[in-house]
Amino acid sequence: MRVDHIAIAVKNVEEALKNYQKILNVDHLEIEEVPNEKVKVAMLMLQDTRIELMEPTAPDSPISKFLQDRGEGIHHIAITADDIEKDVARASANGMKMLGGLRTGSYGRRITFIHPKSLNGVLTEFCEAPPANGKKEE
Amino acid sequence: MRVDHIAIAVKNVEEALKNYQKILNVDHLEIEEVPNEKVKVAMLMLQDTRIELMEPTAPDSPISKFLQDRGEGIHHIAITADDIEKDVARASANGMKMLGGLRTGSYGRRITFIHPKSLNGVLTEFCEAPPANGKKEE
Repeated sequence: MRVDHIAIAVKNVEEALKNYQKILNVDHLEIEEVPNEKVKVAMLMLQDTRIELMEPTAPDSPISKFLQDRGEGIHHIAITADDIEKDVARASANGMKMLGGLRTGSYGRRITFIHPKSLNGVLTEFCEAPPANGKKEE
Repeated sequence: MRVDHIAIAVKNVEEALKNYQKILNVDHLEIEEVPNEKVKVAMLMLQDTRIELMEPTAPDSPISKFLQDRGEGIHHIAITADDIEKDVARASANGMKMLGGLRTGSYGRRITFIHPKSLNGVLTEFCEAPPANGKKEE
């Protein structure tokens, strides 16, 4: 089990990227729009994990609401589940409040979220492990 | 360069640990007090990084203030610098607001912090890489 990414809500991805590139040596960078989440995301690949900068692309994006309420900052962390069905079942059985069932996120990986109330204020995503052969996710 | 840890401010480490153990398969766990930071920390070692749960041990702990102002949640992320002196110099030269100079943190590793205003709301620690031989840090 490992940390897949840390997602940060920002007002403007390009501006935020300039800041993060002042401190990080990024191995690889991708920018993509995720229409069903209404965000534009810059993915900064570090050695073992990613930092994602997320800008809302619509006023009704969940990230717009977050920015209004709390300003820029960390939105969630994502844990790569070993076996997502088993890990989600265990979390539910242990009383974690899940935010919806398993669904398809970016790269076609299955995801779900745990409510921050269940985890001391931290919105936590479970996401399916990337393909075992380690090739670039598509 | 990689994410060394994600630090979460909590009211009670033991209670928070019960929650996190409901969802994580933790490889290794340590609890320690860090008197000069006035915190008690549970370190949950995952495959590539750590999640740290930090409870204040004094009313004037920086974590006490954080909890009062914002409640439980992510306090900072830490990046393992490749060459901390060079990386800190680059960050400063690029206009990042540093929170104090290099100093000794837990495990005797040198650390410093970048102000959240410089990084879109994210308090970011730079910490020295652990010993290259990969042995347990002490």
